[in-house]
Amino acid sequence: MTFPGKEAQAGVFPETAEIKNNHLFIGGCDTVELAREFGTPLYLFDEATLRHRAAEFKEEFQSRYPDTLVLYAAKAFICRALAQLMKDEGLGLDVVSGGELAIARSVNFPRDKIYFHGNNKSPAELTEALDWKIGRVVVDNFYELSLLSSLAQERGRIQDILLRLSPGIDPHTHHLTTTGVTDSKFGFLLAQADEAVAQAQASPYLNLIGLHLHLGSPIFEVEPYQQAIAIILDLAAKMKAKHGLDLKEFSPGGGYALSYTADSPAPPISHYAQAIVTALTADISNLGIDPPRLVVEPGRSMVGRSGVALYRTGATKEIPGIRKYVSLDGGMGDNIRPPLYGARYEAMAASKAGNPDMEKVTLSGRFCESGDILVKDVALPILGAGDIIAIPASGAYCIPMSSNYNAFPRPPIIMVREGRARLIRRRESYEQLMSCDLV
Amino acid sequence: MTFPGKEAQAGVFPETAEIKNNHLFIGGCDTVELAREFGTPLYLFDEATLRHRAAEFKEEFQSRYPDTLVLYAAKAFICRALAQLMKDEGLGLDVVSGGELAIARSVNFPRDKIYFHGNNKSPAELTEALDWKIGRVVVDNFYELSLLSSLAQERGRIQDILLRLSPGIDPHTHHLTTTGVTDSKFGFLLAQADEAVAQAQASPYLNLIGLHLHLGSPIFEVEPYQQAIAIILDLAAKMKAKHGLDLKEFSPGGGYALSYTADSPAPPISHYAQAIVTALTADISNLGIDPPRLVVEPGRSMVGRSGVALYRTGATKEIPGIRKYVSLDGGMGDNIRPPLYGARYEAMAASKAGNPDMEKVTLSGRFCESGDILVKDVALPILGAGDIIAIPASGAYCIPMSSNYNAFPRPPIIMVREGRARLIRRRESYEQLMSCDLV
Repeated sequence: MTFPGKEAQAGVFPETAEIKNNHLFIGGCDTVELAREFGTPLYLFDEATLRHRAAEFKEEFQSRYPDTLVLYAAKAFICRALAQLMKDEGLGLDVVSGGELAIARSVNFPRDKIYFHGNNKSPAELTEALDWKIGRVVVDNFYELSLLSSLAQERGRIQDILLRLSPGIDPHTHHLTTTGVTDSKFGFLLAQADEAVAQAQASPYLNLIGLHLHLGSPIFEVEPYQQAIAIILDLAAKMKAKHGLDLKEFSPGGGYALSYTADSPAPPISHYAQAIVTALTADISNLGIDPPRLVVEPGRSMVGRSGVALYRTGATKEIPGIRKYVSLDGGMGDNIRPPLYGARYEAMAASKAGNPDMEKVTLSGRFCESGDILVKDVALPILGAGDIIAIPASGAYCIPMSSNYNAFPRPPIIMVREGRARLIRRRESYEQLMSCDLV
Repeated sequence: MTFPGKEAQAGVFPETAEIKNNHLFIGGCDTVELAREFGTPLYLFDEATLRHRAAEFKEEFQSRYPDTLVLYAAKAFICRALAQLMKDEGLGLDVVSGGELAIARSVNFPRDKIYFHGNNKSPAELTEALDWKIGRVVVDNFYELSLLSSLAQERGRIQDILLRLSPGIDPHTHHLTTTGVTDSKFGFLLAQADEAVAQAQASPYLNLIGLHLHLGSPIFEVEPYQQAIAIILDLAAKMKAKHGLDLKEFSPGGGYALSYTADSPAPPISHYAQAIVTALTADISNLGIDPPRLVVEPGRSMVGRSGVALYRTGATKEIPGIRKYVSLDGGMGDNIRPPLYGARYEAMAASKAGNPDMEKVTLSGRFCESGDILVKDVALPILGAGDIIAIPASGAYCIPMSSNYNAFPRPPIIMVREGRARLIRRRESYEQLMSCDLV
């Protein structure tokens, strides 16, 4: 049997997804067997989809603008194996904490391609960044500018920095993840840019090499990027005239969308690349700025599609005339996005993928909270206890935001490729839940 | 200086909170010193408030209805030290997972006072419960009824059970935490009770001793409890007549409110106890039921007030005419309740508690998301970098739902009492973030 049409066309499942013997296969592996071998809940990443996506980002941007550096935004999901894979693919890394730095360091990630973001980096974290000699710190505000200068001075270092600016553009995404508007905790206001550039240039310990902006995530339109690029480059021209700013690097951030459901497909990367490069080249030409290095920061769009969550069904509750609940053995502990953002997902019965008898059910989680619903009102084959449910587009912002709610151990993660599965994160044990406890 | 009036009256801060030398003290400890010694973010629990609250629950219920068993609902927050404290106070424990069972077991919690809840307990967890010979399993649905019976049979055990019923009552709380309505994943429908009782009684491996309901949380009104009690006891009378059900135990669950802010004070426990006991005694008298043991399950209301989160201020961003952001060194990683539920909190400048120059600020977190705002528009003294902010009413549902978002280690927890602080959970290390990783 071929893979169902609408999800495949929308790129919701990994590219290696196929249906054989009424089971969902990914990366050549039978997901029902994987669920049995590794237990559920289980997160899997399809290595082919990941590597192709990394290559696609490089190709789509560099073919249009050769001096593009693609950073993977680690906040979407990072573990040691994923950091190693991004390193192998030649990408840089956008980190937002000492913890993400530590993971990068553990695989000897090339430090010159590490960019450190965040609205409130601690003195300890900035010190770690300086001591590890990472490539760039993206300075968010005046407090950090002066703190970083002092810390660099203490260490006798000169740190390359970019300034993050808030362009005042609304990217039309969820209010919780909209960052580029004026009322945001992130970045310098445009009105503060003059003072920020002057202050950065005045420090002998800081080397201002570029400007950065980020609009939010996920963004399905390209116009907000184009508007924001025009605003920041216009500012860069003014800063060049007034302060002699040499814009060696420019980053319009990330935030590219992901196809979570078949009815809400994300634009292809080529669409973003075309829009961003067109705006950039037109603006720098108009403004007489030398072409800077373009730095892009995909996170969600890099890993989202490669990840699939597998759950096993348990109890079923049918409320006549209202709803049929099918409970899974995971939920808001491993994926809080449905109650937090109202996120919607597709779902597939991986163990009954060929079954034609469909009914509408609601997939509830196992956590003790009514909001713990993974997918509401989805058509699935008639399920019994012990069936395997696959939820696609689970590669980004699920595991990183996972908790031990209800003292439930967090799930293992595997990487699948050409019929082989490799454990990249073990399931937590009960002992680990108490590993920091003192009585 | 005395403690500010409105928060003290509302019981938002722990009962030992006081202001000395412009610093907030809790449990006789200077919170500014605690922040320095243990680092921030830091969660503290006031032992006096915890123990008094446990005693208050017992007193308020048992003085009105002697045969009351107070269970602490571990999902609100559990760690080894807290399980030990609840054991010392003579409470029982409401657990919802094998992990919570494991924590209880690690302190030799009296197993006869452990009640196991949940809408989708796994076969492995039910087996653990049977093997550890815990007191009660609160059976949620038909699947579990038959599964538990089979597992008990395999082990030659007879398990005492209660049935959880869904009374179809709306308790008027947040839609994500409303559980007792008809459209809920939890519990048997009233229309299924007859079959559920018959099926439970038919199993030689299950001993049906009572009925349970839970409405949701937090509930500020008592009428929903009274309505639900009447419905379930009426059902119990019918089940007695039809099946000879001997109602030895009856639980109206938990869900008692907590005063998060001074303008939204929770009713005192006496108010709930009075309403519940009045309804129970009137109903059993009318219906001719022998008085059952009353089992109540406070979680949030047991620990919420004793917990305070301490953060250190870092960057500040002032957007003229719009908002002033003060960034803290924690946020949605350790407390997701503001973006998840729109939860509101008070905040106090623990390091400038006597400062009369107030201004309105928004306390933002350090996580890379715009929704990471802890308290919006709160009046605080003018803050610099390095000030300590205390957020009260942080004892429930913060730590249990905490994540390693942005690869940020989860905070340590201390217990304070009579001027002494004791570490009950260490801060996570970077190494622990990678402890399950395989490259």
